[in-house]
Amino acid sequence: MKGLYFDGTGMTYREDLPIPERTAGKSLIRILLADICSTDKEVLKGYRPDFKGIMGHEFVGEVVESDETGLIGRIVVGELNEGCGTCLYCRTMREKHCLNRQVIGLSRDGCFAEYMVLDTHLIHAVPDGLPAEQAIFTEPLAAALEIVSQVHVDPALNAAVIGDGRLAYMTAQVLSLTGINLTVVGKHEDKLAMFAPFARTALLSEYPPERELAAEECFEYVVDAAGNESGFHLAMKLVRNRGTIILKSTYAGNASIPMSLIAVNEITVVGSRCGPFEPALKLLAEGKVSFPPVELYDLKEYRDAFASGAFKAGFRIGNPRKKD
Amino acid sequence: MKGLYFDGTGMTYREDLPIPERTAGKSLIRILLADICSTDKEVLKGYRPDFKGIMGHEFVGEVVESDETGLIGRIVVGELNEGCGTCLYCRTMREKHCLNRQVIGLSRDGCFAEYMVLDTHLIHAVPDGLPAEQAIFTEPLAAALEIVSQVHVDPALNAAVIGDGRLAYMTAQVLSLTGINLTVVGKHEDKLAMFAPFARTALLSEYPPERELAAEECFEYVVDAAGNESGFHLAMKLVRNRGTIILKSTYAGNASIPMSLIAVNEITVVGSRCGPFEPALKLLAEGKVSFPPVELYDLKEYRDAFASGAFKAGFRIGNPRKKD
Repeated sequence: MKGLYFDGTGMTYREDLPIPERTAGKSLIRILLADICSTDKEVLKGYRPDFKGIMGHEFVGEVVESDETGLIGRIVVGELNEGCGTCLYCRTMREKHCLNRQVIGLSRDGCFAEYMVLDTHLIHAVPDGLPAEQAIFTEPLAAALEIVSQVHVDPALNAAVIGDGRLAYMTAQVLSLTGINLTVVGKHEDKLAMFAPFARTALLSEYPPERELAAEECFEYVVDAAGNESGFHLAMKLVRNRGTIILKSTYAGNASIPMSLIAVNEITVVGSRCGPFEPALKLLAEGKVSFPPVELYDLKEYRDAFASGAFKAGFRIGNPRKKD
Repeated sequence: MKGLYFDGTGMTYREDLPIPERTAGKSLIRILLADICSTDKEVLKGYRPDFKGIMGHEFVGEVVESDETGLIGRIVVGELNEGCGTCLYCRTMREKHCLNRQVIGLSRDGCFAEYMVLDTHLIHAVPDGLPAEQAIFTEPLAAALEIVSQVHVDPALNAAVIGDGRLAYMTAQVLSLTGINLTVVGKHEDKLAMFAPFARTALLSEYPPERELAAEECFEYVVDAAGNESGFHLAMKLVRNRGTIILKSTYAGNASIPMSLIAVNEITVVGSRCGPFEPALKLLAEGKVSFPPVELYDLKEYRDAFASGAFKAGFRIGNPRKKD
């Protein structure tokens, strides 16, 4: 089959990859669409030096083989963390934190190929009527929903999102559904324009380090989706005493943090990663959130796809079967 | 009156200090006992370079003058943060976070003296039958109770406290009241012995940096009461994925923190400071928590008092009036 293979140093397009074989508890999925996530770009930069295999972890596909016969022929999406099923984390509803987890596209074969195998219990059927081009946003939207899964967001208060990229956009849409007074702080005027329909927007220059903020200018919730250390420092400045910072950014290296300020001002910092798929599919199906169209490429054009500046770029790999 | 006066560089015993005058909304308190807190020692080291005045913020006293006539003659304790009463934090139940707050013994005259003035609404009557020698623990015990005020502690899970000092002891007693499986990790075998009646104890050497811990050895809640950066790093090692670190330690300078680990492992970090007085008084009065006797000195013996290695050292400044 065709696929994008990472050999530990670089990625190549191949047509000689074997179709994977499923075992009990797993399903074979024919991939229709697959999206590029910033994590995929990190892999190419050396984020997962031990990984060799097919890349990609955001997809929409069609189940071809499964023990769960009701799934066969269904259009589906899937979670990326396959737990061992027996450890403390797997037994306490934290499978994605399993220390022995396999992660598609990061530690075992992913979805930038015609077929992929995945644990059946990680598969979620796409609601009828939701196009694959929207369903493809399920995984990143779920990550944004993880915030409201972890933290009680009181809509009577206020919130800020730091960042104007894709993660910030998903996060801001999710927060705006609570009805909360929302501000998005970003670097790029053109990107911020996207947020205007549902948030106040502010340029970073509105909050220079030397300016002291009154409590009224600050926020009860601040989401750091900036992707670098400066985001957290701005979050510390923007958050009210006894407020909450939600840390969505992941970046290499340590940050230098004034821990006493966290204690004295009683700040809560909540690390947040992958989230729940079902509410993401529901919100997408009901049109309560929406995203710009995905820019789709052929697998062969992977260099263009990875270099794309689009909101989201990906691959059209297969087509849905005609309904009988 | 007699008192310990800090002139910006050092502390002296004086007998010529004026008895403070109260204004409306404030009460005049005759101090009976006053305790030394580690913050007082920090002041002597230069923690509050702008402060000049009478030191001390933990006390038991008798109300001498007050608009609230029912308080006159009552034995009381008091909170240390006087808010402005009008700002956003004061209006939203966060007076202790008021940006214009005055803090007794840290930014205005404190309790190491015969008399002190305090906002009447910060005064709490000591229940009948609770000796001043136990009531003196109200403020630090309240700080420990702030943990369960901020964080829902599920007694079905497990918790660790890092540190074997006074703050750790108060914290561990409060946590043990939930019934949770509790471990205290400390440096000193002799200090750890105090914790044995209500917690498993472990020496730091049980968790060397190079040893990887299984999830079963880790904790859902970890309180960092170590007082230095190493406490937080151990907390990061001991906490389970999706667990909570409660940061009680305050220390100068920044810490170098692997922020990605916080995000990827979905750790919650909760900064925690001063806490609620009423439950502290209730637990002390009911004997549900107890502490070793305070070592009491005369104000004149302040050098000995500050150098004491006792669990808690303080001053006997006045005696309760005989009841009619």
